[in-house]
Amino acid sequence: MKLSELLGFRFKETPSDCQIASHILMTRGGYIKNVGSGIFSLYPPGRRVAQKIERIIREEMDAIGGQEILLPVAMPASLWKESGRYDSVGSELMRFKDRSGADMVLGMTHEEAVVHLCRDAAQSYQNYPFMVYQIQTKLRDEPRARGGLIRVREFTMKDAYSFHTSQADLECFYAKCHRAYENIFRRCGLPGVVSVQSDSGMMGGKVAHEFMLVTEVGEDYLAICGCGFSANMEVAASIVENAAAEDMDLIKVPTPGVKTIEDLCAFFSGTPEQFCKAVLYQKNLTDEIVAVFLRGDLEVNEVKLRNLLGEEIHPAVNADDVLPCGYIGPLGLPAGVTVIYDRSLIGAHNLVTGACEEGYHYKGFTPARDVPGIEYHDAAKILEGGICPQCGKPGIKLVRGIEVGNIFQLGTKYTKSMGMAYLDQNGQSQVPIMGCYGIGVGRLMASVCEARHDDYGPIWPMSIAPWQVHLCAIRVENEEVAAAANGLYEALQNAGAEVLFDDRKVSPGFMFSDADLLGVPVRVILSPKTLARGAAELRTRDKAIQKDIALDGAVNEITALVRELMGEFTS
Amino acid sequence: MKLSELLGFRFKETPSDCQIASHILMTRGGYIKNVGSGIFSLYPPGRRVAQKIERIIREEMDAIGGQEILLPVAMPASLWKESGRYDSVGSELMRFKDRSGADMVLGMTHEEAVVHLCRDAAQSYQNYPFMVYQIQTKLRDEPRARGGLIRVREFTMKDAYSFHTSQADLECFYAKCHRAYENIFRRCGLPGVVSVQSDSGMMGGKVAHEFMLVTEVGEDYLAICGCGFSANMEVAASIVENAAAEDMDLIKVPTPGVKTIEDLCAFFSGTPEQFCKAVLYQKNLTDEIVAVFLRGDLEVNEVKLRNLLGEEIHPAVNADDVLPCGYIGPLGLPAGVTVIYDRSLIGAHNLVTGACEEGYHYKGFTPARDVPGIEYHDAAKILEGGICPQCGKPGIKLVRGIEVGNIFQLGTKYTKSMGMAYLDQNGQSQVPIMGCYGIGVGRLMASVCEARHDDYGPIWPMSIAPWQVHLCAIRVENEEVAAAANGLYEALQNAGAEVLFDDRKVSPGFMFSDADLLGVPVRVILSPKTLARGAAELRTRDKAIQKDIALDGAVNEITALVRELMGEFTS
Repeated sequence: MKLSELLGFRFKETPSDCQIASHILMTRGGYIKNVGSGIFSLYPPGRRVAQKIERIIREEMDAIGGQEILLPVAMPASLWKESGRYDSVGSELMRFKDRSGADMVLGMTHEEAVVHLCRDAAQSYQNYPFMVYQIQTKLRDEPRARGGLIRVREFTMKDAYSFHTSQADLECFYAKCHRAYENIFRRCGLPGVVSVQSDSGMMGGKVAHEFMLVTEVGEDYLAICGCGFSANMEVAASIVENAAAEDMDLIKVPTPGVKTIEDLCAFFSGTPEQFCKAVLYQKNLTDEIVAVFLRGDLEVNEVKLRNLLGEEIHPAVNADDVLPCGYIGPLGLPAGVTVIYDRSLIGAHNLVTGACEEGYHYKGFTPARDVPGIEYHDAAKILEGGICPQCGKPGIKLVRGIEVGNIFQLGTKYTKSMGMAYLDQNGQSQVPIMGCYGIGVGRLMASVCEARHDDYGPIWPMSIAPWQVHLCAIRVENEEVAAAANGLYEALQNAGAEVLFDDRKVSPGFMFSDADLLGVPVRVILSPKTLARGAAELRTRDKAIQKDIALDGAVNEITALVRELMGEFTS
Repeated sequence: MKLSELLGFRFKETPSDCQIASHILMTRGGYIKNVGSGIFSLYPPGRRVAQKIERIIREEMDAIGGQEILLPVAMPASLWKESGRYDSVGSELMRFKDRSGADMVLGMTHEEAVVHLCRDAAQSYQNYPFMVYQIQTKLRDEPRARGGLIRVREFTMKDAYSFHTSQADLECFYAKCHRAYENIFRRCGLPGVVSVQSDSGMMGGKVAHEFMLVTEVGEDYLAICGCGFSANMEVAASIVENAAAEDMDLIKVPTPGVKTIEDLCAFFSGTPEQFCKAVLYQKNLTDEIVAVFLRGDLEVNEVKLRNLLGEEIHPAVNADDVLPCGYIGPLGLPAGVTVIYDRSLIGAHNLVTGACEEGYHYKGFTPARDVPGIEYHDAAKILEGGICPQCGKPGIKLVRGIEVGNIFQLGTKYTKSMGMAYLDQNGQSQVPIMGCYGIGVGRLMASVCEARHDDYGPIWPMSIAPWQVHLCAIRVENEEVAAAANGLYEALQNAGAEVLFDDRKVSPGFMFSDADLLGVPVRVILSPKTLARGAAELRTRDKAIQKDIALDGAVNEITALVRELMGEFTS
């Protein structure tokens, strides 16, 4: 491809609406164009990178027995009513009515559609296990679209679905898919992606993992430990220790105007760990109040809370009308409040907590003594420096990450609700067990850019670079340069290399800054000066190589370098 | 791929909702599954055929300099308001509101999105010409979804858009794209596809062609002539001759109760050509009545009429309230009626026509004499056996066809309305000229099936067959058969062949009827009998070849046949 013919343009200024490197560089480099909130078009370089990622994903899915299918973007709402998600999923699900007035939805994920496709086709145990996948457009009405391709409303996604006759078989395939995902991220140039335990959210099921690229611009927090433990902060078990102490008496203390943990610490000359604080939520459906009690130095983990309650919640609104906010404690709460005690209260003694009476707190509160039949739940966020749930040592680090893929053991949530069944070897009807496995192509592309760039542009790995070789002809109006460049361009193409040929009459500086933005791994420069030396200059985008190569044999040397750089990304 | 592992199932019965061969066979063969009206999922064999079609399309688009991009499925309505199509396109355009209440549309075609992508990127004449394309999901709320993948509401489409600085350059590229389309249809196994002049409909522009597969199940009518002329009946010029005659006087005749052409023929002892009939329409926006006068043996072509008027029309409703229906003629019409005279009235003499008075007709009506300043327009449907607009001989044949592709010279409809401009060599701002070029992947797949099938299943051309070789192991429980079949399966795959291996313990009849439905071009059969002869049986799906081949050298012979059968479909 000649750069003079390539659609798109590159520029130096940072666009005002771009905050993170991938968004900035892929906009400045002519990869993407914003069409509306969270909606993008791809220029040819963006499409080429995406297509190479798709090819790697296909190869790895095929290698574990995946069969490619295609499911619809627009579906009758009736399918989603079968699974119950038409009601349980909120406004992220885009909905419309067709010309006949029928309710339709736009697929944000395709469990319903895949069960619809497979339920007739897999009615005997002999049809199992199997895995199908598609690479297709998804729509999700994301309220906080941001970061270019990182968080969008329309995206290309590989979604795979496996079906099994036993949990053991699902687990075996799940492990296989986990390895395939590791291959995919490594081959796309992200060997450092870690998999963490995660919440299964609206997908259902119990076991789930996210694949995370650790990066400061990530929106998720991961809890990791030197022992190898890693989990999304949303699900990482929070473990704290409480020092032993002799119980003191429970005494009500007047504390007028003292409401926050800070005020209480000052008033009681204590530290946050010595308090039992209340955080109030409301159930979305009933507005019923939920009080979570936990140690004063911790925060509530809303994902855990939601899973504990099995329903959606939100921070309480106007709770002051019914409760003495700032003075709430476990003792004396009115009926109708759901109470959750966090595990941080296990073994705690002599805490300060609200007395459920305006202007009063208790001191000397010892949960195990003062709350008969108390039960503890894991409802707090894990702390930086906290105790690792795996090795038990206080080595937890919190880092930020971008989720580049996820895998779920779904169980029978969809197969059961949608009436998918098969006859087992004994002729008995059984419900198949499902797994599902997603990767967003655009987000992966942006993540690679986040992980591999410098100030001047992306540094694409050979496996997904839009082209393999970027040929710069400096002073192409010089006949000798033009002849040599055209000859090398053709010879490299004949040798099977993907070449972007900058044939424009522009300055070297202009040419190189465009080349940096296009991020092609191997750069070959021809100019009157290099030709005078009988040479071309060979550089890599990552600056590891910068040398002259003889014009004779240049094709072999360049294609050998391309092969070498591809080497680390092969299956 | 082993057939025992393939997702999907095949069956003998014709599904009750299927009328045409491709719908029947692709449903029975496990290629497609209906999800809702005009919405389908693809099982793996369907996805494989579609993918091979997509590859051929990509190769041919790349060969004429196409650059692949990706545009969004969901777009802000504001884009479509810029072009004016948000209002001008009717209920085929699927619309919805996002969570913020903003109007959104689902792309049925992408002129707006592509102009949005390109208008910043092509501001100099040096950027022209260029062509971009995508292969992507389209949604169109088709009121009459039918025929399986032939007429659907969601479909995968290749849509290409070219941009030019002159009409001559557009025409040059248009011809190039026309040849690329011929290549695509030939390579997909449809060498007989004809291109016909067509109406540009809601796309705008003047010159357009449709690529038509001539088939009895087609929904379009084509007018073709032995001289090479071909056009969609919607646009084919209607030419009729009127015999010379001496004009008679215009006389009003009482014709009580005589209203239809049949009744009039009987009453006046004439033939339909001797009448000037009226057909009434109404303008959609104003309800204003349009009267079309044409020779009694012809019918109005509504597409031509719409184009003549430049607005949408519908057959008149309740015109009886204001006009003496059955007695309408050009003379004495009330004011406010738009009148169109068809060219079939040129040179006509002594016709019978309505007197615009209940119970009366005129005879002796000679349009050129009786209607001062009469102007004629082409508003009639071309007739079977009619005069060819190209060679002038009465050789027109009407045949039915499926539109498998279309190309349009759009002109500046979108670039102008959406403010796309470039500076020419003189620094003057100019509006680029566009072409657009579409192919529906699913419809093409179904069309190949329509053109190439027998009673037992599709007969896929090697170029787009889901697999190249279908290996049947008959009595696979026989160890010798199993060993030979597994060996051949592996050897063929190692030799690069795409093999579907039927490894199931089922009867030969069952196996062959499945194989017929899967339509793989080369079939290889191993059984105890063939092994006893030291042979495999080699058959082609089209029955051209059926012979024994020696097991030694079978791989070479089979792969040579695959290459040979692929030969006719290479670029």
